[in-house]
Amino acid sequence: MKPGDKVKILTQDKEYEGTLMPSLQETGKDTYILKLKNGYNIGIEKKTVKKTTVLKEYIPAKNKKDKIEQDNSLPTISILHTGGTIASKIDYRTGAVYSSFSPEDLLKMFPELSKIANFRSNLISNMWSDDLRFKHFEVIAKAVQKEIKKGCQGIILGMGTDNLAVASAAMSFILEDIPIPLIFVGAQRSSDRGSSDAAMNLICAAEFITKTDFSGVAICMHEHSSDDTCAILPACKTYKMHSSRRDAFQPVNDTAIAKINFNTNKIEFLQKNYVKKDLKRKLNLKSNMENKVGLLKIHVHMDPKQFEFYKGYKGLVIEGTGLGHTPGQAPNEISNIHKKIYPALKKVIDSGCVVIMTTQTIFGRVHMHVYDKGTDLTSLGVIPGEDMLANTAFVKLSWLLGNYSKEETKKLISQNLRGEINERLTEDMFLN
Amino acid sequence: MKPGDKVKILTQDKEYEGTLMPSLQETGKDTYILKLKNGYNIGIEKKTVKKTTVLKEYIPAKNKKDKIEQDNSLPTISILHTGGTIASKIDYRTGAVYSSFSPEDLLKMFPELSKIANFRSNLISNMWSDDLRFKHFEVIAKAVQKEIKKGCQGIILGMGTDNLAVASAAMSFILEDIPIPLIFVGAQRSSDRGSSDAAMNLICAAEFITKTDFSGVAICMHEHSSDDTCAILPACKTYKMHSSRRDAFQPVNDTAIAKINFNTNKIEFLQKNYVKKDLKRKLNLKSNMENKVGLLKIHVHMDPKQFEFYKGYKGLVIEGTGLGHTPGQAPNEISNIHKKIYPALKKVIDSGCVVIMTTQTIFGRVHMHVYDKGTDLTSLGVIPGEDMLANTAFVKLSWLLGNYSKEETKKLISQNLRGEINERLTEDMFLN
Repeated sequence: MKPGDKVKILTQDKEYEGTLMPSLQETGKDTYILKLKNGYNIGIEKKTVKKTTVLKEYIPAKNKKDKIEQDNSLPTISILHTGGTIASKIDYRTGAVYSSFSPEDLLKMFPELSKIANFRSNLISNMWSDDLRFKHFEVIAKAVQKEIKKGCQGIILGMGTDNLAVASAAMSFILEDIPIPLIFVGAQRSSDRGSSDAAMNLICAAEFITKTDFSGVAICMHEHSSDDTCAILPACKTYKMHSSRRDAFQPVNDTAIAKINFNTNKIEFLQKNYVKKDLKRKLNLKSNMENKVGLLKIHVHMDPKQFEFYKGYKGLVIEGTGLGHTPGQAPNEISNIHKKIYPALKKVIDSGCVVIMTTQTIFGRVHMHVYDKGTDLTSLGVIPGEDMLANTAFVKLSWLLGNYSKEETKKLISQNLRGEINERLTEDMFLN
Repeated sequence: MKPGDKVKILTQDKEYEGTLMPSLQETGKDTYILKLKNGYNIGIEKKTVKKTTVLKEYIPAKNKKDKIEQDNSLPTISILHTGGTIASKIDYRTGAVYSSFSPEDLLKMFPELSKIANFRSNLISNMWSDDLRFKHFEVIAKAVQKEIKKGCQGIILGMGTDNLAVASAAMSFILEDIPIPLIFVGAQRSSDRGSSDAAMNLICAAEFITKTDFSGVAICMHEHSSDDTCAILPACKTYKMHSSRRDAFQPVNDTAIAKINFNTNKIEFLQKNYVKKDLKRKLNLKSNMENKVGLLKIHVHMDPKQFEFYKGYKGLVIEGTGLGHTPGQAPNEISNIHKKIYPALKKVIDSGCVVIMTTQTIFGRVHMHVYDKGTDLTSLGVIPGEDMLANTAFVKLSWLLGNYSKEETKKLISQNLRGEINERLTEDMFLN
């Protein structure tokens, strides 16, 4: 057996089938690493193995670059790639999946795309979305601007899923008045797996761009765990709700914008009031982001120093509990440490930091005039973040501080600019 | 009009009906505060008001304490109260809801309870769950121990909802081998509101305690937004998923243990393998908690100092992205700051801190051998937290460090002790 071979391994209690991975340095002598059909790796102790069989020998594929043919009757879509699972391959060295992408490969991997549009493809970076810094948003925004200038009906942006929804929110602020659709597409399973969602997500995004008049930033991912429909999700109101499911991306306090049936190609809009495509509209690129912005999740038994850390920051988003709370009123008989949290928070605000409250319940909204805790916090200067996701509030706050004065920021943060605040989520919805 | 009166206020554009609240200090001169039927307050500028009508004058209720009659044929339930919305009243001073509780009031407020069982009622503390410190868990645990010694069929623990699921997880670790059921009950709407869930949640918990042989820690809250069923939820695998809905509490990577039909009193078990009630079993109270434990939520554009802050801590739970990632591999051309995150994390681990990885997707599990990011982190010494909720991992880590050695803690953290890790959530579930 050698790495890459499809093999069958029989142990004392069970039979395993999969692809043999190269051994890990630490455990290599004692353990086989097997990539199972479901795409995940398991380790099998060599001493428990009774029999091994090679089912299919691994022969490395030749890497020739095919020129893609253009059909002049079709619209043009630009694909910008930043890395992530959607273009990942297996690393036979570590046995893990790593991000490796050449733009030509994409169309070779997904030939169906060439029937929908002509594609330009550009690799902006090759990274995991975890490593995104605000500066990357500027790099991406400028690449989008360049593609719009070159002319196209829409742009597909491939990205790792971990921070895809955060990046789409950031882009919706940065790319003011974008004349065409910019659709973020990711994959929860890599293309070498039978259950990969990469092809369907890409194809649905291309269908949506070419068959509708939608403009603006959105996300295209599986709507359900089955391969029937993709959802076009709102850039600022989407959360990755599962670590591995293909339908992990869910709208929060909002509905999907549209859905695309993969089998019939039928597109149904669930939101009607979107901004229409207008190739003459001028993109207003505002890519400044304030670097000194933090995000702090509240938990029980906090230390005031966890708050004080953000003294000197320009902005801080708190992911509070429930309707927007932090600790701060613990009874004396147990501990005095909680009593130091409001003063710590006050120090942060007095240092010039704009502090926004969101909720860790994901769904719902902060409402800081219901309990005295909330009113105490707003008296300190904490600004309610309405029904914004913490991550959306975080990139919005950095963007506002980068492009507006502190006073304007404090006003604009609770106003709906890009669909990040659902004005339909009124008090009445609390009756449910 | 005076505070407390039911009034109708006609403005230039609209008519409002509700209870007049006392004015706020800052805006009192110019604004009426009206508590609407849905329980929330709105401000109405006095200058826009055309007409006001008093519909029903406010007459303060007399406060006489009724002695509760005992029925010797009924089982005994002990109610322990810690504060929160379930016992909150309106503060006519600030117009907000504040927590105020006298145990006798509860049975007066919910007379239906006296048909189900005899109740003992004790006020442990009167606080918001936001302010919980580990020491409170000990206070609660000792109160539970005392009630068990006194003898009862089960205990209802009333608590604010914000950290109710965190406290129930902590209690399930602390109260090893608990012989009877301890059911956490909260309310998302206070008892003075028509839509309050306080009564139904309490009644269903009492029904569940008296009509089944379940023992252990669990939560009883609305299953849906309608008043039909309550769910008995697993103590370690429940998350408050909405800021205000009555069905905010949802099982994560698990199912409800049982559901109770409020109209028919029928109880249906969804989990069959629970530990049975046994009044002879001896409670093993392990209430030590390590104080120096933190929780850090990952976001884009992090500063290595946010990690370094936890140097010297005994434990840290990271709420990573996706399958369990942090930033750490940013390309050089943009910034070097990300490259300092792994070294910062290493410093924290080298200082003696046990670092556990969980995921901010809430649903699903970490899986740190899929991508090279994950394998890099485990090489640093980060321990995968399986499918544990971040908050559950947080209290479990503090509890383990309080009662076991560091080496035992590192082993036990990824083992299922109280249903906090779903062993049924196998690799196969990733095919969805």
